[in-house]
Amino acid sequence: MTTTGRQLVSTMNADNTMTLELVEREFPEPKGNQVLVRMEAAPINPSDLFLMTTGADLENADYSAGKVVMPVAPQVAKGQSARHGKPQKVGNEGAGEVIAAGDGEMAQALMGQRVACVPGHSFGDYALADATMCLPLGDHSSREGAASFVNPMTALAFVETARAEGHDAIIHAAAASNLGQMLNRICQEDDMGLVNIVRRPEQADLLREQGAGHVVLSSAGNYEKQLADAIRATGAYLGFDPVGGGTTTDTCLRAMERVAASRMEEFNRYGSDQQKKMYIYGRLELAPTVLTPSYGFAWTVSGFLLTPFLAKAGPETLMRMRKRVLDGLTTTFASEFKTRVDLDEMLTKDAMMDYARMATGEKYLVTPA
Amino acid sequence: MTTTGRQLVSTMNADNTMTLELVEREFPEPKGNQVLVRMEAAPINPSDLFLMTTGADLENADYSAGKVVMPVAPQVAKGQSARHGKPQKVGNEGAGEVIAAGDGEMAQALMGQRVACVPGHSFGDYALADATMCLPLGDHSSREGAASFVNPMTALAFVETARAEGHDAIIHAAAASNLGQMLNRICQEDDMGLVNIVRRPEQADLLREQGAGHVVLSSAGNYEKQLADAIRATGAYLGFDPVGGGTTTDTCLRAMERVAASRMEEFNRYGSDQQKKMYIYGRLELAPTVLTPSYGFAWTVSGFLLTPFLAKAGPETLMRMRKRVLDGLTTTFASEFKTRVDLDEMLTKDAMMDYARMATGEKYLVTPA
Repeated sequence: MTTTGRQLVSTMNADNTMTLELVEREFPEPKGNQVLVRMEAAPINPSDLFLMTTGADLENADYSAGKVVMPVAPQVAKGQSARHGKPQKVGNEGAGEVIAAGDGEMAQALMGQRVACVPGHSFGDYALADATMCLPLGDHSSREGAASFVNPMTALAFVETARAEGHDAIIHAAAASNLGQMLNRICQEDDMGLVNIVRRPEQADLLREQGAGHVVLSSAGNYEKQLADAIRATGAYLGFDPVGGGTTTDTCLRAMERVAASRMEEFNRYGSDQQKKMYIYGRLELAPTVLTPSYGFAWTVSGFLLTPFLAKAGPETLMRMRKRVLDGLTTTFASEFKTRVDLDEMLTKDAMMDYARMATGEKYLVTPA
Repeated sequence: MTTTGRQLVSTMNADNTMTLELVEREFPEPKGNQVLVRMEAAPINPSDLFLMTTGADLENADYSAGKVVMPVAPQVAKGQSARHGKPQKVGNEGAGEVIAAGDGEMAQALMGQRVACVPGHSFGDYALADATMCLPLGDHSSREGAASFVNPMTALAFVETARAEGHDAIIHAAAASNLGQMLNRICQEDDMGLVNIVRRPEQADLLREQGAGHVVLSSAGNYEKQLADAIRATGAYLGFDPVGGGTTTDTCLRAMERVAASRMEEFNRYGSDQQKKMYIYGRLELAPTVLTPSYGFAWTVSGFLLTPFLAKAGPETLMRMRKRVLDGLTTTFASEFKTRVDLDEMLTKDAMMDYARMATGEKYLVTPA
């Protein structure tokens, strides 16, 4: 028995356009530990926008009911040639009610419950999800649980990674984001030092109001000195950068080296022996990452993704992290939403141009029904 | 009792000049496990040139007996402000006869022997060296042993690193270097796959004559395809890059991803899950390293230095590596020298302009006496 409903898909076309549209699809009967969830709420995260708006000219797109055709920068279209003509389902996470379950024990136990899930196609009427990755929400609403995976688990993964690599302080760039605000709360709870980098004074105020001890303004004239001072105060030689392109990571490494070199008694042509590391976990800027030869050879820059982290961390760590998220769903891990849209509204010009900006505190929630 | 002799030093000056000169200095009496070596031969390695010629205008320098004053690019002078006015001793390694020893057991055992050493100031008449890092040369000449540390140990460290990280094939850029030729021989002995990247056809011929199976010409029109083919054939997802600046590392990562992505059944917005890693171990190009957003998030770029590698590897690994170098001193680890110069000759315009080019097969040997 299959269920029919709408699904948002994104297709890159060879003619330098991208199509975003709602299609009717059949959701197959769940098997084993799969469950079928009637979606009630799903957040639009930056990681979703990669398939939806990256490189697209939203101003000059063609908006018809249930379908948007956007001109796309040729280099973006070319870079994603592997998906030309192949519709990609969109939406990482969301929450809703389990209306069918496979015969697996975990799936059966979720029947009738409200759960958060990570189906990878959450922008639609239904989603087929893995029961092992579902979080039963109990008395919480779908709105409260909709964004309980991507940002909470990523923020927790940063702190887990820092501990595992022997650090007790970290730098976070673009730190006023929804994820950044969670990280700020987690670091305070866990006594992990945190240097927040933000661009605008009001973002700095926001984080300070939420207890942040170190906030550095990247738009300030003395940015690099401020950053070095905060690194000196916290000992943060590990950082997480969602910007990716440009000089954000380079500036952090240079500031780390500036502090480390100031403690050296003699000049060393190879730089300080202080290991410095930056993880790039997003691509808010698509420009190339630029690394200057300014910090010797004791440095590492690495991509960071949640899924391989979780696979490596193992089920016990995963369960511990998920329990913590559930316990803090309306506090530490609460997400604010600017507005809610249904599946049709999310494809209007006004909505798309607004959520594609990814402005601080202006996250959208998709409520299909 | 001290010994007096000449020492080459390099001084960066605040007026955008660099001075390279021979100074008379006192070498103190060795203590503990120190030995005093009368230097007989020392190679000029690229790592030595960083303090000697990087950023300098050798054409318009002032060459007087025993002293060279070179105009230096302002950004280079500024980047090394930590050493302004502070003479730096020059010369990583060399070989000679132990003429005095501290009272430590290891030092005493070397008395009167010919040894290779890593004093960090080998361009001079004498050097004070750590006995634990000395390699007794037995019947080998100082010329044979002079270059037995930096390049041999670095090449061996690449293979040790690859094994430790689970790889059985590596990429090497600028692969026709003295180090690259050693690596080519080591990889054949150890059955480690090797993709050699070179710029000129004659460099490719040189490596092929020495048994290289995969040589890729970076100057060829189909360079990236060639590189991807070699990666496909060897499974090399780890590489070592002495160029550092520009796109060498990026091109390797892109080629790795091209091979990994061709094996994926579905498009993944985050790239392949094949981990890709490049170590930058030199800065033949001082331009920034450019990393394009073309290979997802499963990648790492890291600086590589021999000293921290050896410290982490521990004494047993160090001893095993050194024994292998000694056993292969005239075969696997043999260095060819274009010419030999004494301390005065190494500061002449002709010599400096020649060795600063770091041309393949044109390494200089300094013989102080």
